[in-house]
Amino acid sequence: MSRPEVFAALRRDLAFLLDEVLDVGALRSTGAFSQFDADDFGTLVDAAIEAAAKLFAPCAEVLDAEEPAMRPDGSVCVPDELATALNAYIEGGYLGAALPEDVGGMGLPYVIAQAMYAAFFAANAPAAAYPMLTAAAANVLRAFGTDAQKATFLRPMVEGRYFGTMVLSEPEAGSSLADLRTRAIPQADGTYHIVGNKMWISGGEHDLSENIVHLVLARIEGAPAGIKGISMFLVPKRRVNPDGTLGPLNGVTLTGLNHKMGYRGTINTALAFGADAPCVGTLVGTEHRGMATMFHMMNEARTGVGLGATMMGYAGYRVSLEYARERVQGRHPDRRGADEPAVPILEHADVRRMLLTQKVYVEGGLGLGLYCAKLIDEHATATDAETKEALDDLLAVLTPIAKAWPSEFGPRANDLAIQVLGGAGYTRDWPLERYYRDNRLNPIHEGTNGIQGLDLLGRKVTAHQGRAFRRLLAAIRASIGRFESVEALQELTTALDGAVGLVAETTMKLGAAAMGGNVRLFLANATEYLHMLGHVVIAWMWLEQAGTAAARMDQASEDDRAFLEGKLHAARFFTRYELPRIERQAALLQRLDDTALTMPAGAF
Amino acid sequence: MSRPEVFAALRRDLAFLLDEVLDVGALRSTGAFSQFDADDFGTLVDAAIEAAAKLFAPCAEVLDAEEPAMRPDGSVCVPDELATALNAYIEGGYLGAALPEDVGGMGLPYVIAQAMYAAFFAANAPAAAYPMLTAAAANVLRAFGTDAQKATFLRPMVEGRYFGTMVLSEPEAGSSLADLRTRAIPQADGTYHIVGNKMWISGGEHDLSENIVHLVLARIEGAPAGIKGISMFLVPKRRVNPDGTLGPLNGVTLTGLNHKMGYRGTINTALAFGADAPCVGTLVGTEHRGMATMFHMMNEARTGVGLGATMMGYAGYRVSLEYARERVQGRHPDRRGADEPAVPILEHADVRRMLLTQKVYVEGGLGLGLYCAKLIDEHATATDAETKEALDDLLAVLTPIAKAWPSEFGPRANDLAIQVLGGAGYTRDWPLERYYRDNRLNPIHEGTNGIQGLDLLGRKVTAHQGRAFRRLLAAIRASIGRFESVEALQELTTALDGAVGLVAETTMKLGAAAMGGNVRLFLANATEYLHMLGHVVIAWMWLEQAGTAAARMDQASEDDRAFLEGKLHAARFFTRYELPRIERQAALLQRLDDTALTMPAGAF
Repeated sequence: MSRPEVFAALRRDLAFLLDEVLDVGALRSTGAFSQFDADDFGTLVDAAIEAAAKLFAPCAEVLDAEEPAMRPDGSVCVPDELATALNAYIEGGYLGAALPEDVGGMGLPYVIAQAMYAAFFAANAPAAAYPMLTAAAANVLRAFGTDAQKATFLRPMVEGRYFGTMVLSEPEAGSSLADLRTRAIPQADGTYHIVGNKMWISGGEHDLSENIVHLVLARIEGAPAGIKGISMFLVPKRRVNPDGTLGPLNGVTLTGLNHKMGYRGTINTALAFGADAPCVGTLVGTEHRGMATMFHMMNEARTGVGLGATMMGYAGYRVSLEYARERVQGRHPDRRGADEPAVPILEHADVRRMLLTQKVYVEGGLGLGLYCAKLIDEHATATDAETKEALDDLLAVLTPIAKAWPSEFGPRANDLAIQVLGGAGYTRDWPLERYYRDNRLNPIHEGTNGIQGLDLLGRKVTAHQGRAFRRLLAAIRASIGRFESVEALQELTTALDGAVGLVAETTMKLGAAAMGGNVRLFLANATEYLHMLGHVVIAWMWLEQAGTAAARMDQASEDDRAFLEGKLHAARFFTRYELPRIERQAALLQRLDDTALTMPAGAF
Repeated sequence: MSRPEVFAALRRDLAFLLDEVLDVGALRSTGAFSQFDADDFGTLVDAAIEAAAKLFAPCAEVLDAEEPAMRPDGSVCVPDELATALNAYIEGGYLGAALPEDVGGMGLPYVIAQAMYAAFFAANAPAAAYPMLTAAAANVLRAFGTDAQKATFLRPMVEGRYFGTMVLSEPEAGSSLADLRTRAIPQADGTYHIVGNKMWISGGEHDLSENIVHLVLARIEGAPAGIKGISMFLVPKRRVNPDGTLGPLNGVTLTGLNHKMGYRGTINTALAFGADAPCVGTLVGTEHRGMATMFHMMNEARTGVGLGATMMGYAGYRVSLEYARERVQGRHPDRRGADEPAVPILEHADVRRMLLTQKVYVEGGLGLGLYCAKLIDEHATATDAETKEALDDLLAVLTPIAKAWPSEFGPRANDLAIQVLGGAGYTRDWPLERYYRDNRLNPIHEGTNGIQGLDLLGRKVTAHQGRAFRRLLAAIRASIGRFESVEALQELTTALDGAVGLVAETTMKLGAAAMGGNVRLFLANATEYLHMLGHVVIAWMWLEQAGTAAARMDQASEDDRAFLEGKLHAARFFTRYELPRIERQAALLQRLDDTALTMPAGAF
């Protein structure tokens, strides 16, 4: 079922964030997007929202109910509705939204493409995963592919005739890619034979596209052990003839499907490369630099995962809000008499608390996802090295947060959405239990949230003596400076200023421990650090939204005033209910708590 | 699959809690359980654990996969394995474990029966729900049934030939039972005809037993509106002849099944009473006092729900711990070289944090569930009014916590168990995603957690000018007094003492607001209050476990020392990582935060 309340709200939220908070129109002044008129961005986003509601949302339920299955011949079947939805998506040109026009894309800013993705994620994330993975793989080829690879594979991918995958994990190498064993054996013609077993490959096998382009991490024979001996290879499901016609099958065998709790529409496969027949691949980028090449794709994939987690939370919030407006049940505690009329459950304080909590998680997460996307555009269009470095820094430190924070708090929003509906929310009559199951994937894939914490604290925050971290704090403090004279925002700016100080102090103490050489202790609570800094960043996103709302309030229509008042009120809620959580985290990080580290293994 | 690691650990945990922390053997000195020898309790609990592992656990997967379905004739089918498991359970006599011998039960202390349930819940909660509901219904009949009702229905229920249900909710009366509309029309022979539609009835229809005994809430024609006009009726699926043989079907029609995210083995039904044929019921207890009668059942049902939530969390903890011991992946952050050996993931700090968090949630919850059960035994065996009142008070204030706290934190434990396994945990190859889905029911049924918060703060804490609340604090302070001179426990006693003071201060401020007449504001954050007091109660349970462990340490074997050290370490972890969460809650409760209440409805 398409849920109009989700998409009507999304339209308004995206317009507010894109036009008013982020002022994406300003990207046109860089000259990079001058082919677009002032209204084009909004028009295109609105069209994407409509397509998501009409074409993607209706098949979400069947995709969940009819899980992909393996046929005896090793092929797989997926519901027909998936192909229909994906074809409509491809015909709309969305797959290449952010890719340049010279390879068949629309040449839109990345932030606009992400706003479009937001709509498709809210409608049907498991379906959206196929084009999203394809666009990410195409982007890698665009940046690192040889001319021959580009000529043969890039345009069919942008056109949605070939789909793409990322092939990293192996049975004994999941989070630890350094241990991967898949081999690439050099051939006389410059190609490689790929041999090995891979796991957790989304979209690894299907008949939804003419071909599948696997980007595979493997180790060239004789390469060094560890992370520095890994290279990336392009491995098509079907070989492609020089004239672009499809050749014979390459040696890629489907060895199994993973049966997941949720996200079922995205087929998840185990593949064997070169087991039954030779599997030919070509090198992408530089030998032994496969991880760096993959990370080019992974950073965008990570913010994409975070955005997906946000949007499942967003859809759940809106469905539970609509329910709360309509469902009449119970009375106010000071009017409990049997002759008093029952009220919509939206009137109950605890239901409001659950709705506001969802609102601050998902609208805060959406703000962060789009902000990061805009930084990517600014980075791409920046002309001086200093600006590029500053943007690189901000993106480096924000990416693990943009992945992990929404994938922690998006599912919590879904949990609360179920609770608002009570027993009904626990049934398949409503989509909330599906969002809850689907969203549980997000803290796991594209680097578990634990890995993100280690990346943030162990790598991003400490790099260049904390340069990126200081840039983040400076950016937050710049917002505080911009808004602190607005009376309606003083509670927020004061609280955020205190929080930034606490985070700075905590980070310095951690840094001192790292300098002292006790790396294990330094990183022992990296996940708590991630959540702490994440909450501060989201409070910042709320200050930006509240500040914009406060500035617009006077000229707003009555209807708009309610919307803007909601932003102000939600920002206060985040400040009062959520931001104080960082105090507990700061305390345990500052004292370098070692309780988990020192638990004897036999005592669990 | 039966998971021996779960049951071996449970055996040890239950022995520790029952024998050492709670000293349940002392119940024998009351004379009420003098038929049991010193070793009997432990022997019987161990037998239940074995039965749970062998008979209940193996069919959990199929019960989930093969959801109950409605046949065209209105009957339902469930997997055969369910009947097999339930028959074994009944033959073992577990259904009547806590019921007196004169009605066919085993006459065991309630705390021993709950320990047995704990094992069955850990093995297969959806299957355990049938006998648990039956035992609860039997207990109501034992307390409130007429001699005729007892003669006809009680023994067949204890023997497991008839199953029982609780029939409360209606389509327009879920959380708000005051609005229920089902009518009871008095007949000349003293019976009633029941007419109305009911929902969310677990075990409402099946062929697992010869008959089903519904305990139905309905309104006698002419009764007052609201909660004070509700009566309880015994409504059998099949009428029973005076000689105990089964008569014709009563007018109870299955109108639909709820298709749930989890807990699928427990069939959940919508029933129509008196729609197609007359439906005859008999009054249970006093006219218009049906809610009080139902609450006799509901308090035990509520602590039972909490225990179930704990045990799903417990099973997940043990499975994820075993995985963490065996799965080798990654290296320490100070030994990351490719030539360093990979380590079991139990070595990683963040995995340890996730395991310890699970441990403190589930072993703390288990301590609370059994403590409450022991209070019920002490209440039943108490001979003086003063003791009974004190125990009533403690149970009143602890019941909403014993229901809601584990049903909030048990699912969080399951969430962390999935995360420990990563992608594997998200697949159906492991039981963790099933626990996660099953456990999500617990914050909803038997009174949502929001309702529990209102019950705790709005009713239990304020009753008799806070008498029950003060008794709870006195009991916690008595524990602190008992342990504060033990050096190894001083961190815990100091922290708990501070927490108790903070809760007392917070409660006084709330009480003052209530006295001032602002009931809405007083109750606006009742759920936060519930979580705050819940964390303090669980910290107390951990002090009790740590105190016992500290006292036993010197004489313990090496293996036991690791177990006891685990208890001490976990108590420290709870004190350091979890207990400080109450500070945020206390602050917002003390300032009577109204942010949720004052959000304009149009601004969400």
